[in-house]
Amino acid sequence: MSAAYFAEFDTVRYEGPDAASDLAYRWYDKDRMVFGKRMEDYLRFAVCFWHTFCWPGSDVFGAGTFNRPWLMGPEDEAAARAKREAALAFVEKLDLPFYCFHDVDVMAPADSIGDFRKSFALAVDHLEELQAKHGRKLLWGTANLFSHPRYLAGAATSPRPEVYAWAASQVRDALEATHRLGGANYVLWGGREGYDTILNTNLAVEQENFGRFLQLVVEHKHKIGFSGTILIEPKPHEPTKHQYDFDTQTVYGFLKRFGLEGEVKVNIEANHATLSGHTFEHEIAMAGALGILGSIDANRGDPQNGWDTDQFPNSVEELTLACIEIERAGGFTTGGFNFDAKVRRQSVDAADLLHGHVGGVDVIARSLLRAEAIIKDGRLDAFRAERYAGWSSDLGKNIKGGDLASIADMAVAGNLAPQPVSGRQEWLENLINRF
Amino acid sequence: MSAAYFAEFDTVRYEGPDAASDLAYRWYDKDRMVFGKRMEDYLRFAVCFWHTFCWPGSDVFGAGTFNRPWLMGPEDEAAARAKREAALAFVEKLDLPFYCFHDVDVMAPADSIGDFRKSFALAVDHLEELQAKHGRKLLWGTANLFSHPRYLAGAATSPRPEVYAWAASQVRDALEATHRLGGANYVLWGGREGYDTILNTNLAVEQENFGRFLQLVVEHKHKIGFSGTILIEPKPHEPTKHQYDFDTQTVYGFLKRFGLEGEVKVNIEANHATLSGHTFEHEIAMAGALGILGSIDANRGDPQNGWDTDQFPNSVEELTLACIEIERAGGFTTGGFNFDAKVRRQSVDAADLLHGHVGGVDVIARSLLRAEAIIKDGRLDAFRAERYAGWSSDLGKNIKGGDLASIADMAVAGNLAPQPVSGRQEWLENLINRF
Amino acid sequence: MSAAYFAEFDTVRYEGPDAASDLAYRWYDKDRMVFGKRMEDYLRFAVCFWHTFCWPGSDVFGAGTFNRPWLMGPEDEAAARAKREAALAFVEKLDLPFYCFHDVDVMAPADSIGDFRKSFALAVDHLEELQAKHGRKLLWGTANLFSHPRYLAGAATSPRPEVYAWAASQVRDALEATHRLGGANYVLWGGREGYDTILNTNLAVEQENFGRFLQLVVEHKHKIGFSGTILIEPKPHEPTKHQYDFDTQTVYGFLKRFGLEGEVKVNIEANHATLSGHTFEHEIAMAGALGILGSIDANRGDPQNGWDTDQFPNSVEELTLACIEIERAGGFTTGGFNFDAKVRRQSVDAADLLHGHVGGVDVIARSLLRAEAIIKDGRLDAFRAERYAGWSSDLGKNIKGGDLASIADMAVAGNLAPQPVSGRQEWLENLINRF
Amino acid sequence: MSAAYFAEFDTVRYEGPDAASDLAYRWYDKDRMVFGKRMEDYLRFAVCFWHTFCWPGSDVFGAGTFNRPWLMGPEDEAAARAKREAALAFVEKLDLPFYCFHDVDVMAPADSIGDFRKSFALAVDHLEELQAKHGRKLLWGTANLFSHPRYLAGAATSPRPEVYAWAASQVRDALEATHRLGGANYVLWGGREGYDTILNTNLAVEQENFGRFLQLVVEHKHKIGFSGTILIEPKPHEPTKHQYDFDTQTVYGFLKRFGLEGEVKVNIEANHATLSGHTFEHEIAMAGALGILGSIDANRGDPQNGWDTDQFPNSVEELTLACIEIERAGGFTTGGFNFDAKVRRQSVDAADLLHGHVGGVDVIARSLLRAEAIIKDGRLDAFRAERYAGWSSDLGKNIKGGDLASIADMAVAGNLAPQPVSGRQEWLENLINRF
Ligand SMILES: [Co+2]
Ligand SMILES: [Co+2]
Ligand SMILES: [Co+2]
Ligand SMILES: [Co+2]
Ligand SMILES: [Co+2]
Ligand SMILES: [Co+2]
Ligand SMILES: [Co+2]
Ligand SMILES: [Co+2]
Repeated sequence: MSAAYFAEFDTVRYEGPDAASDLAYRWYDKDRMVFGKRMEDYLRFAVCFWHTFCWPGSDVFGAGTFNRPWLMGPEDEAAARAKREAALAFVEKLDLPFYCFHDVDVMAPADSIGDFRKSFALAVDHLEELQAKHGRKLLWGTANLFSHPRYLAGAATSPRPEVYAWAASQVRDALEATHRLGGANYVLWGGREGYDTILNTNLAVEQENFGRFLQLVVEHKHKIGFSGTILIEPKPHEPTKHQYDFDTQTVYGFLKRFGLEGEVKVNIEANHATLSGHTFEHEIAMAGALGILGSIDANRGDPQNGWDTDQFPNSVEELTLACIEIERAGGFTTGGFNFDAKVRRQSVDAADLLHGHVGGVDVIARSLLRAEAIIKDGRLDAFRAERYAGWSSDLGKNIKGGDLASIADMAVAGNLAPQPVSGRQEWLENLINRF
Repeated sequence: MSAAYFAEFDTVRYEGPDAASDLAYRWYDKDRMVFGKRMEDYLRFAVCFWHTFCWPGSDVFGAGTFNRPWLMGPEDEAAARAKREAALAFVEKLDLPFYCFHDVDVMAPADSIGDFRKSFALAVDHLEELQAKHGRKLLWGTANLFSHPRYLAGAATSPRPEVYAWAASQVRDALEATHRLGGANYVLWGGREGYDTILNTNLAVEQENFGRFLQLVVEHKHKIGFSGTILIEPKPHEPTKHQYDFDTQTVYGFLKRFGLEGEVKVNIEANHATLSGHTFEHEIAMAGALGILGSIDANRGDPQNGWDTDQFPNSVEELTLACIEIERAGGFTTGGFNFDAKVRRQSVDAADLLHGHVGGVDVIARSLLRAEAIIKDGRLDAFRAERYAGWSSDLGKNIKGGDLASIADMAVAGNLAPQPVSGRQEWLENLINRF
Repeated sequence: MSAAYFAEFDTVRYEGPDAASDLAYRWYDKDRMVFGKRMEDYLRFAVCFWHTFCWPGSDVFGAGTFNRPWLMGPEDEAAARAKREAALAFVEKLDLPFYCFHDVDVMAPADSIGDFRKSFALAVDHLEELQAKHGRKLLWGTANLFSHPRYLAGAATSPRPEVYAWAASQVRDALEATHRLGGANYVLWGGREGYDTILNTNLAVEQENFGRFLQLVVEHKHKIGFSGTILIEPKPHEPTKHQYDFDTQTVYGFLKRFGLEGEVKVNIEANHATLSGHTFEHEIAMAGALGILGSIDANRGDPQNGWDTDQFPNSVEELTLACIEIERAGGFTTGGFNFDAKVRRQSVDAADLLHGHVGGVDVIARSLLRAEAIIKDGRLDAFRAERYAGWSSDLGKNIKGGDLASIADMAVAGNLAPQPVSGRQEWLENLINRF
Repeated sequence: MSAAYFAEFDTVRYEGPDAASDLAYRWYDKDRMVFGKRMEDYLRFAVCFWHTFCWPGSDVFGAGTFNRPWLMGPEDEAAARAKREAALAFVEKLDLPFYCFHDVDVMAPADSIGDFRKSFALAVDHLEELQAKHGRKLLWGTANLFSHPRYLAGAATSPRPEVYAWAASQVRDALEATHRLGGANYVLWGGREGYDTILNTNLAVEQENFGRFLQLVVEHKHKIGFSGTILIEPKPHEPTKHQYDFDTQTVYGFLKRFGLEGEVKVNIEANHATLSGHTFEHEIAMAGALGILGSIDANRGDPQNGWDTDQFPNSVEELTLACIEIERAGGFTTGGFNFDAKVRRQSVDAADLLHGHVGGVDVIARSLLRAEAIIKDGRLDAFRAERYAGWSSDLGKNIKGGDLASIADMAVAGNLAPQPVSGRQEWLENLINRF
């Protein structure tokens, strides 16, 4: 039943900025070299299972509006199988290299833990076949520890050890499946790891349990020989009032506390960045400065709406700044650009799924080319370097070797009276706009 | 000139909930025992210099509206002296034990670094006299590293070493003055330690310089034998677009990175908590859980306005939750409750300064009594403890000793199927409302 | 099946502030006189169908957690009947006078328009019986014009006339049912009346269609002799990016434009007030000033979360200000206090439904008593009146009769030089806190 | 002293996208035809006095950083004269046609009302000369009714008639000066027309006074024969907690209430749009739909900061959508694009003032060209028109002529069952990105 769903669409190809078709890449030219790599290898695009194949177009105020064939009947293994087939066929149709999934996205639901594991195992077998058939790879796998009622109060931060053990089982299986499927990373998104009310919450206990859980995952990764990266995806809140993985700096502190700053990196989502009060490029730059940039979820939010709208990126201006910071951080190693994005509830057609992805891919590809042009031009970096040049002067060096009193004495003895120097923000903004 | 300013007001005294006077304490009964301490010793209230004695009632859209005598003429040592006299007299009039200041708040302005130091030294001599005369103490001192044009791009994070050296000089002097005046803490508030645009900013360099600066301060503290606590006051932004000390968890990560988590604590401001997307009680609880709760700035914000409105606390409901978390964290050691609050621009009378402080003191005192009643009642803590009781069961203990596979096996072998258990949020909220 | 659900609970009664039971009213004493009316008659509490009986505890990130018997099997007429029985029994158990519903809340789902109308008609017949049996009344009815996929792009503002006609059918039936059931008001909540993207939206056409629709409703009301009030419930956004009924002043302008300001009033929701950037009391005061205060949805939001959290009110401080403004606006005529609130997803027990309502009722009742005490005290109103007293002076009266030039000349001729006068905000906030 | 300030800069000229100079227009080609007009005549750019020539680079946390010569000495008529000369020379140097001012921006401060009027009269005489000398025109004038302490509680909404009369005098003089100087519009920005606390505020009285004031202004305009447009500039809050002119729809309702919807239009500021929870293009489209689009203040905000950052526009993506809506609304008549923008506090050089304006001009000019290309392409408008095409069908026409019952019957009789149709948001967003 799934084969037909995207049958009318041709594989999306690069046709250049003047392409006539709506469903061509205008900027994503996978073999074009950028920053010394093929564009495909630099950006490492992934399609996500959940929003694209599992979500029926429902929201808090209304029922699903989509007619995906695999969602119309009973939620059994046949439907799950059809969904997986449609998904991998779709990724191939877009000619993107990767996909991502939660365990529950790819399998038929199951009640008992035994049935759950069996259902998931079937799915993994099938995915392995499909990866080969369609020539696609897994950017990352993860376990859904937030949708089932058992996780209503968290998974690793649940007040109840039974729930923690269930979570451990799901993560073991999802991690091992990711390893078997050749996944490049394994992600933890703690959607319910936080609280609805501080009145019933012991922050100290929950964070200790959370830290220990993360250590367990890292230990297991090494035990099974998984060489991919373990990632945490920060988010400040929603569905919880407060989520522990608030933003990149919060996650960094958490990793330091549990001795994991060398083991775990962040998967930064654009929408979560803005919900936490930061720009997307800020979160990337901060992760770069702290050495923990892992991967990206490219979905944007809406500046006037206070929840996770998970929209496809459509701003070249925003993504250019993001791409500059990715390159400054050294680019991706195991990470890539996942679209954790969903088409709007009114975008009910199969075609809309393609438009969303094609538009998102092109926005990012075009931004990457702009970022490259800006960095090659050199004026941005040169101005920034010059602004800090004083730290290479004698005074700068003496300060580095001094104590508070000796540094203070440098100011007093030198009768220092530094005058304001322009930060040239407007000139810099204009400079960026020329590319 | 200053003596007259508060002359019409009597010393504010505790007169109980049914007091007739507007300027009596209804709840702050300094000798009343609460949580095993005198209320005065528990709360350790402080009046701040800057908003109360230095701010003329101006805002971004309008000129000052206040007629403080010491602000009406030239800004010379005589005016500074008058301001200091008025300030300490005011603190005594409120019968509160502490005050707080920035260097520039208490001194006449001076251009060169030599004159600056001399002017500040005069102020410190005078403050020492006034402390004795009025029987008041210093909760904390700090250096203003954000108002002078030299700090337009930061102090410890300035791109220019000259500015860093100036900051070192101010901090050395302010720290030594705080030590000499018997201050209980020394605060760093990094109002300009952040950026206006990421385009001209090297986050990595700035944060390293900032970390080193903080180490210098800690080293100097030990060198001079200052036994007070070094505090950082988190704030997410304003006047900068982004400030590095975003919130408590961010500061914790920063301290861990520079090896200072045992040396530095946080001064949590209610208004900064909400600007960073957290409740006030969240920030206190988080600091408690991380062992870095230092002191409090009690000024609240406005939930509908996106800047630091710095209003006196007026919600017993909010402060009760804050006081519960302070007590859970063990109460203050060197810290206390500073009012970093300003009366509104329309509150032009001397009396308004008293109303602001008296109201704030009473809101907090009443909240503390409620917090004590709630904790003594025990149901809140008992429910919370019960919620996590599973961690003392065999399963809980086994999990603590397990690895990922063994814990997962516990779930599988036990065929665990945990059912939702109520978090009882509505019951808990009702319970709090009974006190 | 429904009878058993609340069987274990006794009817909730007033037992005073020192009541031992968790499920007693401590402040809501229905026969107590307040502002010259019985408290029950003043507050006119209503229980809502949708959140309390229809919502399964799901959210965007997770499945339902509640085990309401009527939600566990097929969604047929028997289940709908059981839900209705449970609902009215619940309202009686709380001893509250009113309930509210959307058409789809009370009926079995049906596909075709004919079946839809039949199913709804069955429900209305049954509700009529149940109202009599349980002695409860209808505060307001409404039609759900936002959950069904047909309404994905709005109802009265749908680009498609077929959808508009469907909406007309639902509203006709719901309005007539409300009339037959003796409902005191009829509400329009335009959850999808707005847009997801301005790119595909013709604001002018949509608002004209919306205005005409509202006129049709008003005309039909008069035609059938319904004497209740037509209400619009403002909300700024969610699920849409932008909703046309943004806030009270927006709705007022819309009503004026379509000549309906004498026919339609607003149903103000606390949570929608804060989402639109206003306090709850602001929206009430504004509606009062414009003569369009109709009714209240008391559910609060969370100041740190940017979506409709729909929580039970728990702040006496907030509700006191709301009650003052309700009384200033003359109190309710046909309106009342509906709880458009839901217990948290973790609050899975039947008991939690009772705790939510009992707590909400008591918070409002206590607030009303505080509001009465404050108004009787008189200082708040007296200060406010005195602040504007100048408008009764000769100058004030002359200004009222002048033109711009003559008023300007009064300032020039009088050499007016008004000096700042204190607005006494801190004193006023302290005053409120004494009650 | 002012002549020298911009002496080093040449007049800014159009040099095309590949211009070498930082201070050339790359997109603003004033004689190029766009939408049938010269670009200069379409956009009608204006430079504002206050941010560009009066603001010293101060903020709430710090002193001024700029060394404008006319701000360094006493604030006398010589300084004011120098400022005016610098300002008009600057506008000519940018080769932009218009400027804007508040009365207090252009004059030496004066205490008494008589001196105030004299000082302003001197300024107006001089401006008249300077307009002729530099060949520049006045887009709009206004009176500053918010900075002086007398306006601490509002001007037209002050509780005190003395203040209202002062405001009337300022507005009379500013309106007459605008008339004499050939100004195209007169603006009212009610920065203090709102409240700091609802506790001391009578919304009803204040709004009635405000409405009457606006009527007085309109009457006086007609009396003196001023043919320009009267404009109100919406803003939701800051410096007040709440401002009455919240947004465009609020202002529309206010105008309707006082019978002024045919007399007064809105001056929409991008930053105020976003502070009120709307996009910039939304506010323009809404004003267009309501027939009250007057003029634009182009300064943007910062999506992560909650106050008026007043930055130069730098997003072509945002401004393109704004320009589409301006053209849809018929373009400007008397209005234009004012830069109510300020360079950052760190942008201390004279050159920064030029970079800010040149960048802003180019962003808008480029956006206008994109808007023209999109509208000429036709697909955006065609899709939108097609989406509403049903309203031209028989059903659509019948609905227009029907009543609620007849329309409902159309749905029932036709057994209508409308299925979801895609809104194609992703396709539309991609389409925009091609231009
Ligand atoms: Co994500
Ligand atoms: Co997300
Ligand atoms: Co503070
Ligand atoms: Co602050
Ligand atoms: Co509601
Ligand atoms: Co709501
Ligand atoms: Co403006
Ligand atoms: Co503004």
